[in-house]
Amino acid sequence: MPDQAAGSGHRPAPVHTDPDDVSLLTALSALADPVRIQLVRELAGSDDWTRSCGSFDVPVGKAALSHHFAVLRGAGVVEQRDQGSKRVNRIRREEFDARFPGLLDLIIRADAPG
Amino acid sequence: MPDQAAGSGHRPAPVHTDPDDVSLLTALSALADPVRIQLVRELAGSDDWTRSCGSFDVPVGKAALSHHFAVLRGAGVVEQRDQGSKRVNRIRREEFDARFPGLLDLIIRADAPG
Repeated sequence: MPDQAAGSGHRPAPVHTDPDDVSLLTALSALADPVRIQLVRELAGSDDWTRSCGSFDVPVGKAALSHHFAVLRGAGVVEQRDQGSKRVNRIRREEFDARFPGLLDLIIRADAPG
Repeated sequence: MPDQAAGSGHRPAPVHTDPDDVSLLTALSALADPVRIQLVRELAGSDDWTRSCGSFDVPVGKAALSHHFAVLRGAGVVEQRDQGSKRVNRIRREEFDARFPGLLDLIIRADAPG
C-alpha cells in the first residue's frame, strides 16, 4: 500500500517534466519572472514537501499562482504532490543543477529581482 | 585625438548599461530568447569588435535585430560602437561573469535553445 495520501480527487495529479528534457530557453523563460523567482527562493529555503502552494508570500491570486507553479514544473524546477487537500512542493535541486549547473544558485543568491 | 572612428552621425551612439547595475530579472529576461541566445553564442566565439550587427546568422529583420541588440546592451551583455558605417560588437564576458557567475557559460555551452 502506498504510504502517501492519494490526491483528493478534485483535480488531476500534477504533470512533471524531467530537467533532462528541458531546453535552456524553457529554463530561462521559467525563471525570468519576479513571482517565480520569489517562489524558487522561498522553496529553496524550506525542507522538501513542507510548503503548500498557499504558503508563499507572492502578490498573485490562486489561478495565477497555479499557472506559475505549472511553468516551474514544466521547466523541471519544482515537483509537486497532493497530500489530502493540499498540494505540497519541493525544489528539484540536484536534478536541475545537474542539467543547468549554477543557475539555481544565481536565482537564490542574487539581489532582489526588481 | 581619439584613435577610434567616430560614429557616422546618422544615428545616436549606443547607450550601455553596466552589468553591475543589471538586475537578475533583467539578465534572465534578456537571455530567455532564442535569437538573443544565438547572438550571444556567435559573439562568444568571435574576437572583440570583429562582428558587425549584420554578420549574425539570425532569422530576423533589421529593426528586430536592433531591438535584440538594445536588449542585450541594456542587460550588460554586449558592448557596441560605431566604426564608420558599421556597428561592431563585443561580449562583456568578464564584467557580466563577475555580476552573474556562470550564466554566460550556460548559454554558450548548453544545447540548442529550441
